This record gives sequence, C-alpha cells and structure tokens, in this order.
Amino acid sequence: MAAFPFTIHATDGAARTGVLSTPRGDILTPAFMPVGTAGTVKGLLVDQVRATGADIVLGNTYHLMLRPGAERVNRLGGLHAFMRWPRPILTDSGGFQVMSLAALRKITEEGVTFRSHIDGGAHVLTPERSIEIQADLLGADIVMQFDECPALPAPEAEVRRAMELSLRWGARSKSAFGSRDSQALFAIVQGGTDETLRRLSAEALVTEGYDGYAIGGLAVGEGHLEMLRTLDATTPLLPYARPRYLMGVGKPIDIVESVARGVDMFDCVLPTRSGRHGQAWTDRGPLNLKNARFAEDTSPIDETLDCPASRDYSKAYLHHLVKSGELLGQVLLSWHNVAYYQSLMARLRVAIISGRLSDFVAQFREP
Amino acid sequence: MAAFPFTIHATDGAARTGVLSTPRGDILTPAFMPVGTAGTVKGLLVDQVRATGADIVLGNTYHLMLRPGAERVNRLGGLHAFMRWPRPILTDSGGFQVMSLAALRKITEEGVTFRSHIDGGAHVLTPERSIEIQADLLGADIVMQFDECPALPAPEAEVRRAMELSLRWGARSKSAFGSRDSQALFAIVQGGTDETLRRLSAEALVTEGYDGYAIGGLAVGEGHLEMLRTLDATTPLLPYARPRYLMGVGKPIDIVESVARGVDMFDCVLPTRSGRHGQAWTDRGPLNLKNARFAEDTSPIDETLDCPASRDYSKAYLHHLVKSGELLGQVLLSWHNVAYYQSLMARLRVAIISGRLSDFVAQFREP
Repeated sequence: MAAFPFTIHATDGAARTGVLSTPRGDILTPAFMPVGTAGTVKGLLVDQVRATGADIVLGNTYHLMLRPGAERVNRLGGLHAFMRWPRPILTDSGGFQVMSLAALRKITEEGVTFRSHIDGGAHVLTPERSIEIQADLLGADIVMQFDECPALPAPEAEVRRAMELSLRWGARSKSAFGSRDSQALFAIVQGGTDETLRRLSAEALVTEGYDGYAIGGLAVGEGHLEMLRTLDATTPLLPYARPRYLMGVGKPIDIVESVARGVDMFDCVLPTRSGRHGQAWTDRGPLNLKNARFAEDTSPIDETLDCPASRDYSKAYLHHLVKSGELLGQVLLSWHNVAYYQSLMARLRVAIISGRLSDFVAQFREP
Repeated sequence: MAAFPFTIHATDGAARTGVLSTPRGDILTPAFMPVGTAGTVKGLLVDQVRATGADIVLGNTYHLMLRPGAERVNRLGGLHAFMRWPRPILTDSGGFQVMSLAALRKITEEGVTFRSHIDGGAHVLTPERSIEIQADLLGADIVMQFDECPALPAPEAEVRRAMELSLRWGARSKSAFGSRDSQALFAIVQGGTDETLRRLSAEALVTEGYDGYAIGGLAVGEGHLEMLRTLDATTPLLPYARPRYLMGVGKPIDIVESVARGVDMFDCVLPTRSGRHGQAWTDRGPLNLKNARFAEDTSPIDETLDCPASRDYSKAYLHHLVKSGELLGQVLLSWHNVAYYQSLMARLRVAIISGRLSDFVAQFREP
C-alpha cells in the first residue's frame, strides 16, 4: 500500500516539507487540519476555511456515527457532499472520543461497546465497523486504524496492554480496509511516554506497512517536554518516505517543535475552541480579547494575515463582541485562529525550504 | 427640514416604491432594515448582510449606550467605522428598550432614569441626550425622536399620557437636533390602537414637520388585525412626500399588508432571532429545521435566492447543524432569513412598479 504519493521537497534537520497528493487535492506539508468535529469546522463556512489555506479537514467518527449517523451521511452522498468540503478529509477512528466522551464503555478484544453521550443509545465500535464507517459510509480520504488510547499517566502494564490491543486492532483495520486506490489507511503508534513501548509499537506497525503513521496518545496530559521526548524517540523509527501525523496537537509552540522533529501533519480543536472563548492566537501566544486593555485598541489582530477577521476588524470591536457574547465574535476569532494556524504552517514550510528552521524555532521559543 | 430626497417612482393603491437618497447611499423602498442591536447583525459579517441587498441597518441606542458606550463608539470613529458598515444606519431613540429591558425605570417630564440590565449601572435618557447619542456620538444617518411607548393593552388615559409626552419629547428632540445637511430626524406617531389619539399625534407631528414619520407602539401585543386597522387610520394622515416607517414589524405577512397600506420602511429582529432558533422563513411561513422530516431532505431552503445559505446547503445538513447546536446552523439560518426578507422587499417593489400588488398580497395571504 502507498495509495497517495508523498513527495518531500526539502528537509532541514529532521524536518521535512512536501506534498501529499490525493485524488481530491494536494496537501502541502507540514499541514494543519482544522477539526470539523460534527461535519462543520465550528462557526465557519467551508469557503472561509479554504480561504485560510487549509488543504484538508478532520472529521470525528464518534460524533458523526452518533449524529446524524454514518448510514445517513452515506445516503446523503458522503461526508464531502454533506458538509460541502470537496477537498481531502481525514477521519479519526472513534477510539479516542469513545474513551473521553462516551458513557458505560466496555473494552473487549472484539471492540468497544458504549452509550452515546447525546441520547444514551447503545453502540458498538470494532476495527471492522470503524473502517466501514470511515472508508465506506463517510468516504474519508485518509482513514485511521481503530485504536485504544489510554489517558496518561497510566501504569506501564495498562499502557502496554492498550498498545498491544491497538496493534491487533490495527491488523484487523488493515484487513478490513483491504486495497484501495483512492483512500489511504494510517496506523497509530501508541505506547504512552514509554520509549520501549513506542519502539515495539512503531516497529510492528512499520513491518505491517501502512500509507502513513500517526503518533497517538500524546497531548493527553503528559506535558510539553514529555511529548517532545517521546517524539524524539518515535519519529526516527518511522519510514522517511511516508507522512507522519501527530494526533490532537496542539498549541503553536507544540507544532513548531514537532515539525522540527519530523512531523508532517497535525490536527487540534484549539483554534476554533479558543476562538469561541474570546482568544486570538499570535506568535506571542493567545490574546484574551475580553481584556479591558483592548477596549479602545483600533489595531487589528494581525494585519499581515490575508484573512478579513485578522486584518479588517479592530481589537476594540472584537473586544465589544466578546464582552457582549455576540455570535460574530466567536465567528471572527475562530476564523482568525484557523488563518493564523495556516499561516504558521506556511511559514514553517518556507523556513524548511530555505534552511532556516532552527532560527525560526529559536525565535518562536523566545519571541 | 427634508434632509434626504425621497423620490417615489410608482404607486399601486396606497403602496409606494421609490428611493430615499442619503449621503451614505440610496435606500430602495419599501425597505427592510436588519437589526444590528449591539453593533452587529447577530451572527453575520457586514459583507454577508450587504450581499443580501440590505441598504441600511438599524442600531439600538439603548444597547450601544450601555455597551460599549456612546462616547467610546465616538472615540472609535462612530458606529459606521466601529461595525464596518459604511452605508446608512438608522438608530432608535432608546425609549422602547428602556421600557422593555431596563430595571427600576422612572419616567418624568425630563426623561427616563433607569438601571442597566447588564451591570445595574444608573443611566439617564432625555430627548437631548438621545439625540446627542444618536446624531453626534454614534453618527446615525437617520435619527429617531425620543418617545415613550406603552405596552398594549393599556388604559386610554395611559396611552394618551404617553402620546402627549412623546409629542413634547419630539419637540425637544427636534430642537436638540437642529438643522443638519447629512442626517435626518424622524418623528414617531404614538397613540396605541386608538384612532383619535393616533390622529392627534400624527397631526401635531406633521405640523411640526420632520424628515420622516415612524409609526411606533405597534407590534407590542395588539395583534395583526388591530395593527392593520391602526395603520389604515394612521398612514393617510402622514405626508405623501416623506418616508413612513413602521417600527419593529414584523412577520412577512405583516410587512406585505403594511406595504399595501403605504409603509416604506421596516425593521425587526425576527430574521436573525428565528435563525438562531432553527427557523427558516419562506413565503409559506417558517420551516422549523429541527423537524425530523428534514433529516434526509437534500433540497436547499430556496434555490431561487441569490444567497449561499438559501441555495447551497441541504435542509438535511441544516437540520443536523441545528440538532447539534452548531454555530454554523445559527449563522446559515440567520443569513438565509435576512436574504429572504430582502428578497421579499425586492418582490414587493417589483409588484408595485408593475401594478400587481393586490395579486401579490392575495397570493401571500393564501399561498
């Protein structure tokens, strides 16, 4: 398998920049995927998302299977048609959200049974069902293996058990996925912050052979430095020629440091979640627009960004919208944050191509 | 005074269509003004509002004086610059919201003292202060006289007292407004549903002479037929050559019937409020997108409307967004509703020009 060509145009240290080519469009890497949890990048029109430069968005299997239901999305033409995003979509496997959101979950070798956090209805996810939902019903371009992701900290035995189960579920996911020309299947390396477990997981998955390799189970409470240490131990074990995806990460500094360690793809709810809570991300961290110091600040958040929300609206107006609980404040700040993240990825790509990534990282650490 | 030229291009019965010309742009009449309560038409970018065909929006003096504060808006360049709407703005006088929202209000001959519903702070509104806020600080193009609007039903003596007070406040508003080239002052006819009081109010205001005449104190609980009966008695008393504005109205059928009675301008929160509550307006009334019958309906709300929200998104997707409480659902339905209202006004203008308004009204009553 290697469904989608991945061309690396330049490297700088461990970092790489290139293009992952899919039938629905190219993905420039390093790439940030805005999260469209339930078929919408919260608060934004797809045209606004695309205008920020996003090449791909993420959809959540867990949310979509519960509402509106995977079979329903399929009858409505698949996820791309449903949400009007014609470009690539990556779906997660549902495993992570089952652990964090669902009630009465029970894990067996076969899979996970759980109750919906929305209506209490009983559901089952197995590797086979997760692949059916992602690949056949939603029609994702990039499909993730079904995995179990334990919350950290956890005892070594628990992390090991979940990692080994995820390997077996990976093999079943791969078997269910089969061979496809226009869709790709990514594995998920697990093992917590334990380097030995990460090595066992990565080596087993690489031996199986997948279209891409995700690093899962980080950004779940272990902290920035532990995450970077785990990345240092894990990314060298992954094949150079295939894309590497760090799941659920993260803050801009996390992304910058991870790109320097050879990660190609990211997703995180932070830009839209921060936007809904009145925060605007910048290279110097988040601005809290609720703060009274912005009440008469006529400057925009960032006039260098080619996004109306970043460039055209005064901080004073945004402050007013946030203080007043206006929908438009949530929309504009979400839009700015997604644009900021895309701009950050574009600048990282340029820094790698021009061989100046270490300067970029140093400046980002100490602005 | 007659600051803004008002050209009537055609009449059909009592109905008229024309153009009210202002330095910030022409307003095609009959016109619907989307309500931008606190400096934002809720949920929508100004570009989206303008794309629906809106020539003018309304701002609320009460909300803006409390937050962010009229002096602050003035320091930030006035309301047009603050909210990035360069076209005409009409502001209400604050009187209506003081009555409906503020706490501990006390009415005297001088004006109204009240406490903010936001932070309990003490405030005063007088005719002079209302005009200062609207005309000098916010910089509205069309300024409303300060008035008192009693909730209906009310005893005749109470309605008469409020009407007479509003006349005296009107004279003080006019005196405070003075003579201005690029701003207009509208009077407000009061008198509840009492034809005698309406006549007394209208005749006194017309004798004073204003740039335009609003009909206030309707759509406050009297019902559709009482409203139309009051309009029948009131609009003939207003000068043919000046615009007539029915405040706070209304549902599409209210607007259609009022246009047929010679009203030129309207405002209402209904399009955006309905949108936030999952309703999409159509000629056949509101669709409740929460309804399960839309769950797999792939048709758009109205493909004849030149608005992405009306034309491009399936009802199934909108149903999903509304059921999921997604921001985008509120945005798209607000956008559709504002577009629908603007389309309705455009069709009314065409019906008047082509002499087919009575057919249009009849068909609208019984679709």
